Amino acid sequence: MVNAPGSTIAVTMEGTRPLLVEVQALTSPTPYGNPRRTANGIDFNRLLLLTAVLSKRAGFRLAEQDVFVNVVGGLRIEEPAADLAVAVAIASSMRDAPVPADLAIVGEVGLSGELRAVSQLPARLGKPRSLASSAAWCRAAPGAAARPCPTASTC
Amino acid sequence: MVNAPGSTIAVTMEGTRPLLVEVQALTSPTPYGNPRRTANGIDFNRLLLLTAVLSKRAGFRLAEQDVFVNVVGGLRIEEPAADLAVAVAIASSMRDAPVPADLAIVGEVGLSGELRAVSQLPARLGKPRSLASSAAWCRAAPGAAARPCPTASTC
Amino acid sequence: MVNAPGSTIAVTMEGTRPLLVEVQALTSPTPYGNPRRTANGIDFNRLLLLTAVLSKRAGFRLAEQDVFVNVVGGLRIEEPAADLAVAVAIASSMRDAPVPADLAIVGEVGLSGELRAVSQLPARLGKPRSLASSAAWCRAAPGAAARPCPTASTC
Amino acid sequence: MVNAPGSTIAVTMEGTRPLLVEVQALTSPTPYGNPRRTANGIDFNRLLLLTAVLSKRAGFRLAEQDVFVNVVGGLRIEEPAADLAVAVAIASSMRDAPVPADLAIVGEVGLSGELRAVSQLPARLGKPRSLASSAAWCRAAPGAAARPCPTASTC
Amino acid sequence: MVNAPGSTIAVTMEGTRPLLVEVQALTSPTPYGNPRRTANGIDFNRLLLLTAVLSKRAGFRLAEQDVFVNVVGGLRIEEPAADLAVAVAIASSMRDAPVPADLAIVGEVGLSGELRAVSQLPARLGKPRSLASSAAWCRAAPGAAARPCPTASTC
Amino acid sequence: MVNAPGSTIAVTMEGTRPLLVEVQALTSPTPYGNPRRTANGIDFNRLLLLTAVLSKRAGFRLAEQDVFVNVVGGLRIEEPAADLAVAVAIASSMRDAPVPADLAIVGEVGLSGELRAVSQLPARLGKPRSLASSAAWCRAAPGAAARPCPTASTC
Repeated sequence: MVNAPGSTIAVTMEGTRPLLVEVQALTSPTPYGNPRRTANGIDFNRLLLLTAVLSKRAGFRLAEQDVFVNVVGGLRIEEPAADLAVAVAIASSMRDAPVPADLAIVGEVGLSGELRAVSQLPARLGKPRSLASSAAWCRAAPGAAARPCPTASTC
Repeated sequence: MVNAPGSTIAVTMEGTRPLLVEVQALTSPTPYGNPRRTANGIDFNRLLLLTAVLSKRAGFRLAEQDVFVNVVGGLRIEEPAADLAVAVAIASSMRDAPVPADLAIVGEVGLSGELRAVSQLPARLGKPRSLASSAAWCRAAPGAAARPCPTASTC
Repeated sequence: MVNAPGSTIAVTMEGTRPLLVEVQALTSPTPYGNPRRTANGIDFNRLLLLTAVLSKRAGFRLAEQDVFVNVVGGLRIEEPAADLAVAVAIASSMRDAPVPADLAIVGEVGLSGELRAVSQLPARLGKPRSLASSAAWCRAAPGAAARPCPTASTC
Repeated sequence: MVNAPGSTIAVTMEGTRPLLVEVQALTSPTPYGNPRRTANGIDFNRLLLLTAVLSKRAGFRLAEQDVFVNVVGGLRIEEPAADLAVAVAIASSMRDAPVPADLAIVGEVGLSGELRAVSQLPARLGKPRSLASSAAWCRAAPGAAARPCPTASTC
Repeated sequence: MVNAPGSTIAVTMEGTRPLLVEVQALTSPTPYGNPRRTANGIDFNRLLLLTAVLSKRAGFRLAEQDVFVNVVGGLRIEEPAADLAVAVAIASSMRDAPVPADLAIVGEVGLSGELRAVSQLPARLGKPRSLASSAAWCRAAPGAAARPCPTASTC
Repeated sequence: MVNAPGSTIAVTMEGTRPLLVEVQALTSPTPYGNPRRTANGIDFNRLLLLTAVLSKRAGFRLAEQDVFVNVVGGLRIEEPAADLAVAVAIASSMRDAPVPADLAIVGEVGLSGELRAVSQLPARLGKPRSLASSAAWCRAAPGAAARPCPTASTC
């Protein structure tokens, strides 16, 4: 199942219930010297940090790009567990390469570019699992609760 | 029934009651290098995002235009369901082409330029309908409750 | 009765009681490239919008003018019904032409430059009248309650 | 009794009790293109407005001056009745001419440069007088309650 | 007892109890045209005002210096009685001259560069004294309650 | 045990319980004239102050570097006791030299570049000790409560 470039699914927690949220990013060459960053639904400073990590750790030349991030439905994500979904959405828009629409992305991104453990990972993945200290990248059916991916290779 | 260019009707929800609201936009060539965006009654970041989508996905050269958006009557719209009404108002002012005054516009706009489903669509259209996952563009009599359009082609 | 240029009387509602408020504007050629707008007692964004409408719809070259607006007595006007009084005060200062001191001005200004209906117009004019959908421009004795003008031509 | 240049006494109301407050201003040629305005204890926008009136109506060239205003003792004045005291303090600093230390200054300043009536003027002057519609400029002993000046010429 | 340059002791009141607080300042030539001011623990506008007074009244060329002020321990000083301690800390850093570590500094600074009376001065100095209208500059043992200096020359 | 460059462990207090928190910093040459500072989880002004101290007291040329600081897990540190951990993280990223992962860093940084005493130091170090007036730099097992280092040389 194929998605539009720049669109990913994050898994946030509403209390103890996982919630699938679509994150969208749009990058385009900046017409002025100072690139713009616009954040709808995520923290502005968080966006600055993620674009810095993508630039310095993953080689994306975002200093020459305007970056827009939007959380669909007017929702607001406050937790760093959505970092990876935002970063992948930006990378997907930059490379114009779609991300599978049935892939839920969970993970905090550190300044070294490393993935960090997130809280309540088993709950995020739909049933308890012993994954308390590692980041996840799992397929899930959008519209349904997040499920662990069959291969569990990147979990 | 003809409207002034730059003017559209959005449908927002006040609790469970639909409310017709007039949105106005004004674009004009910017006299300085940095184009201004002024938002009265909608979120400023939302306006930045919609001008970005109109520029990158629909070919409107808004980087050279000052854009003003105003919600008539001093009202404030908080939900993304009014995105399409704002975007069409901007496009209408830019092309100097009026939008029919009896057309109510409902729809969230995504960063890919796509229309997103909005919540409570049947209630917005005046009576229950099975349209829970698709955006609407329906004619309605301004001053009255929103009604589904007779042809329902774009619904 | 003659007023100073740049001074007008607006009618706002304090609950159900009309209140006459003096609005003052001052325009002067801007010494720098970026013209200043200073709003005391009205919303800053509202001032930006009204100067845009005066520039684009009425031919006032406000892009080369600093614009100051002040509501006398430290009051604060929150409703768009005072738009017209602010716009006329700016125009009066720009043209250096006084507005009669016994003229109360009521009306919301739209982005097309059109006058919009205001709520509670009969109450604003001192006694009930059937003017629920049209903007008003009525003479009233300052210091007293707003009264409908004898000729009622512009009402 | 002589004061330092740039220092004046304003009369504000704490409920129904008059309160003498010292206002200080400091002007000095701006080293950069953009003059600074710093307001401690009064509203920043109010300061912008008063410097504009002094520039345009009284011929002070404040566009080339940094202007600092401070209310002594960390107090904060919210009412426009202190406008005149602030404006005179700025003028006094600009001309390097002291204002008598036993002079209390009361009056709202309008954008035409005119003095406006202030509320509770009799109470401000220490005992009831029939001065409900005119601005005051009265001598008073600092440290004591405001008293009407003996000559009452400028009252 | 010798202190590091840029460090002074202020006396603030916590209710009716005097509290000794260390204030630190750091000045250094600004690498850009626009000098930076950074205030941690004091009001930013207050810092602007004090640097202006030091520049215009005491001949310190702070327009070419970045100025940082910090209140040790993450405390926040809200009252102008700490003005003098901040100003002396800035002067001490600028001249690279230490201030004695057992000197407590109390005094509001006016825009003319004059010292103003502070409230509760006897309580600040540890025991009642008849100093209700004059600023104080008293030695005190840091870590203990503020005491009046033996010579009382500058009190 | 080796850490990634730019990553340190701070010890903050949640009431009377010590909490180990990972702080990350990222520095990189600024592409524009004005270096950016981005603070996630610590106070922005605090970051400005620490970069100033590192520049002026320790010889790090941060005026030519963008500096990002992030507290892992979306936590927010309000107390100056984390100053040293932030400063060391910045220095570690600048020198590209890792800090041992089992080292907990506690200490307020003053504007002279000196270390200041922090409150509740014994509690921070896991058991009561007589260290009420000196800063600490102690090894501790991450994931466990902070313990005093065996050698206690830098404590």
